[in-house]
Amino acid sequence: MNTQEIAKLLVELCREGKYEEAHDTLYDSNVLSVEMDESMGQREVRGIDEVKKKGASWAQMFAGPATTWCDDAIVSGNSFACRMGFSGPGHDGNIIAGEEIAVYITKDGKIIEERFYW
Amino acid sequence: MNTQEIAKLLVELCREGKYEEAHDTLYDSNVLSVEMDESMGQREVRGIDEVKKKGASWAQMFAGPATTWCDDAIVSGNSFACRMGFSGPGHDGNIIAGEEIAVYITKDGKIIEERFYW
Repeated sequence: MNTQEIAKLLVELCREGKYEEAHDTLYDSNVLSVEMDESMGQREVRGIDEVKKKGASWAQMFAGPATTWCDDAIVSGNSFACRMGFSGPGHDGNIIAGEEIAVYITKDGKIIEERFYW
Repeated sequence: MNTQEIAKLLVELCREGKYEEAHDTLYDSNVLSVEMDESMGQREVRGIDEVKKKGASWAQMFAGPATTWCDDAIVSGNSFACRMGFSGPGHDGNIIAGEEIAVYITKDGKIIEERFYW
């Protein structure tokens, strides 16, 4: 897959909430994942297992299903970016909502880096 | 200015080729500028003077005026991103063209970080 195809498929999977499928099919095993700060845990983690743990940890914030959305990606060279967001019930009954710009770098048909900006 | 306003103005100034005005009016003096690799010089530089030097060095690649373009920005929180590109005559007579996704982080009404992805 080229970067445009990876971007399109990632957006589709995110819209369907299929993050695990995205990790399994689109991510390189040595992927680097970088947050803007440490408010959600470690700023940087490397490796698909660590990225999956981040996803599981994120899901555990919610007491019930979260609604997610993702805009179409902008693509340039081996990189793409899209705005995405979420909203769901927290364990204290309040709604947890947020949004960010996610940037992805691909190499040899896989995502090798993701960075989140908010 | 909030992030949406900074994004709109930066895109306008880029479309007009007014990079120096953008640096002078929208950038924090301690801005961090990060490339994907060292193909254009240092991967990271800090400070508005260093960012201006990068701009001057970029402009010197061309033997004549370069055409630049910039898509509308996507904005989330204190961050925004846009796809931009350029095309112009190199000193050897060949056209130099490229494009990238630029990501900007703002704080207190100024751009404090820019990162380029291609």
